[in-house]
Amino acid sequence: MQKQIKLINRPKATPAYKDFEFVKAPVGTPSEGEVLIRTVYISVDPYLRGRMNEGKSYISPFQLNEVISSGVIGQVVESKSGQFSEGDVVLGSLGWQEYSVAGEKEIRKIDHSIAPASAYLSVLGMTGLTAYFGLLDIGKPKEGETVVVSGAAGAVGSVVGQIAKIKGARVVGIAGSDEKTSYLKDELNFDATINYKTQNVAEALKEACPDGIDVYFENVGGEISDAIFPLLNNFARIPVCGAISSYNNQGEDVGPRVQGHLIKTSSLMQGFTVGNYSSRFSEGATELAGWLSEGKIKYEETVTEGFDHTIDAFLDLFKGANLGKALVKVGEIENN
Amino acid sequence: MQKQIKLINRPKATPAYKDFEFVKAPVGTPSEGEVLIRTVYISVDPYLRGRMNEGKSYISPFQLNEVISSGVIGQVVESKSGQFSEGDVVLGSLGWQEYSVAGEKEIRKIDHSIAPASAYLSVLGMTGLTAYFGLLDIGKPKEGETVVVSGAAGAVGSVVGQIAKIKGARVVGIAGSDEKTSYLKDELNFDATINYKTQNVAEALKEACPDGIDVYFENVGGEISDAIFPLLNNFARIPVCGAISSYNNQGEDVGPRVQGHLIKTSSLMQGFTVGNYSSRFSEGATELAGWLSEGKIKYEETVTEGFDHTIDAFLDLFKGANLGKALVKVGEIENN
Repeated sequence: MQKQIKLINRPKATPAYKDFEFVKAPVGTPSEGEVLIRTVYISVDPYLRGRMNEGKSYISPFQLNEVISSGVIGQVVESKSGQFSEGDVVLGSLGWQEYSVAGEKEIRKIDHSIAPASAYLSVLGMTGLTAYFGLLDIGKPKEGETVVVSGAAGAVGSVVGQIAKIKGARVVGIAGSDEKTSYLKDELNFDATINYKTQNVAEALKEACPDGIDVYFENVGGEISDAIFPLLNNFARIPVCGAISSYNNQGEDVGPRVQGHLIKTSSLMQGFTVGNYSSRFSEGATELAGWLSEGKIKYEETVTEGFDHTIDAFLDLFKGANLGKALVKVGEIENN
Repeated sequence: MQKQIKLINRPKATPAYKDFEFVKAPVGTPSEGEVLIRTVYISVDPYLRGRMNEGKSYISPFQLNEVISSGVIGQVVESKSGQFSEGDVVLGSLGWQEYSVAGEKEIRKIDHSIAPASAYLSVLGMTGLTAYFGLLDIGKPKEGETVVVSGAAGAVGSVVGQIAKIKGARVVGIAGSDEKTSYLKDELNFDATINYKTQNVAEALKEACPDGIDVYFENVGGEISDAIFPLLNNFARIPVCGAISSYNNQGEDVGPRVQGHLIKTSSLMQGFTVGNYSSRFSEGATELAGWLSEGKIKYEETVTEGFDHTIDAFLDLFKGANLGKALVKVGEIENN
């Protein structure tokens, strides 16, 4: 038998333990063309909150009383596929459970000699690619421009800021603790940082962006975002990646309308999801791996140990507890 | 002596007569390279409201106690320029006054044998070009898509809808009277219309857009705009041209934040002003003139007679009184 985590209630506001249930189920058996995978790392991500609601979004909602799924790194323990061998380390969108059965097309092998396996859930995976395509395809930072990123110490934001630095921009990061802002300045060489919990964001932004804002990479929405618009330069670009501040809102998420600012400055806001760029993933992953190996990009992980703490790790996202990518470590990678 | 109109107060909310002053001043005398122009038509436009505020926008604010300016058609009555002759009909950004002195580079001759002179202030001028570039460059409507336009019976909106029809889209127009919606349906062949003053816009939009919204051409902002976002299709485009509902707001213009909708649908919002496309004006004007001569585009004018009623014509814009382009007719074009 193994443990699984199911969604049993659609969260009304902030998700809570009562919305989830740990259950026991048999370990599956692979059929022809399938493999049995032992879970090693589970990715917990803010966007999963959206899938817990009913209704249309860019990705289908989770069904009630089904196992939740997200990015998972695992190790093949039994293979009925010619493409995978026992011991292979693989990546896929798999269930929050200790073992998964997956078809050949649902997973891909990863080379954990280039980077630790967990990096394929972060800087070399979805969050790194999200940063890469959102910033470069929509934000298009130019040398000397000012790029502001919110959620700057998160898995996406920290990579956004570093790519912007590679492109020669001046980078301002907004995050929620002095530990995070110190990390951004000292480790990632951001030009300026703002702690939105202790500083007046509008005032601090004016000071940190004396030449206005050319690119705002939106991860959080809400009042932090509101403070950006009055400082936009002409032809500013806003990749809209996330709005974590509103994900748990019960009422309507209300704030100053943005149309006037967009007209005055001929600025662009574009929502996106990394899936829009799936045909270019290998381009992005190759460039990110290059920067990583050259030491131009660093990344952090906040690793929660043990499958039993998966829900804690997910709920911590909404407390801003994580630095870099939030992961659950369920087991070890074993050498054959 | 001639009459002029000066801005004497920065309007606090809706502009009022007290914000303007009629004064008498001498008719100017052209120097070498200049011409004296008798005003024939004055364009009154919603965007002028923004220039009456202090502070940065895409166009500099009007100075207090100076003559207001906008698009003007006039006739040359005295020329000290080799490029213009007495009797030429010209277009320029000129003062709200009965006579203007202008340099050669400030004006251009128009050919009023192709279309009435006034058309160069509307369908063949700034408002037509605004519709053309905003819709085609940002909105990019495809055959069979649903295009919604607000301010649909106005000078920009009515051309937007007709170009969208030319491109094979299904066009839904939002306007503020049954006279206007009848005009849109009966004269301009819009597929559906909504009278926002008598209908519930959110309900009516759902009914009028059973396949969702692919392009929303934003002219008005406010609550009408709010009703659009929940109906956006994936990869929708929103050219943000105007927000007339908020121009006279004293307090903050507050409504539902849009980030969540943009993310869910990977949609784009882009503010613009026609000046961004100045290098392509001749392309736009040529295509618009072609459609006009083929009868594919019709246009209406709301003409107020007499220079003394210029302020009335401007204030009427904020009551939604105009069908098509609002103009003041100051005089006649005289044959040489």
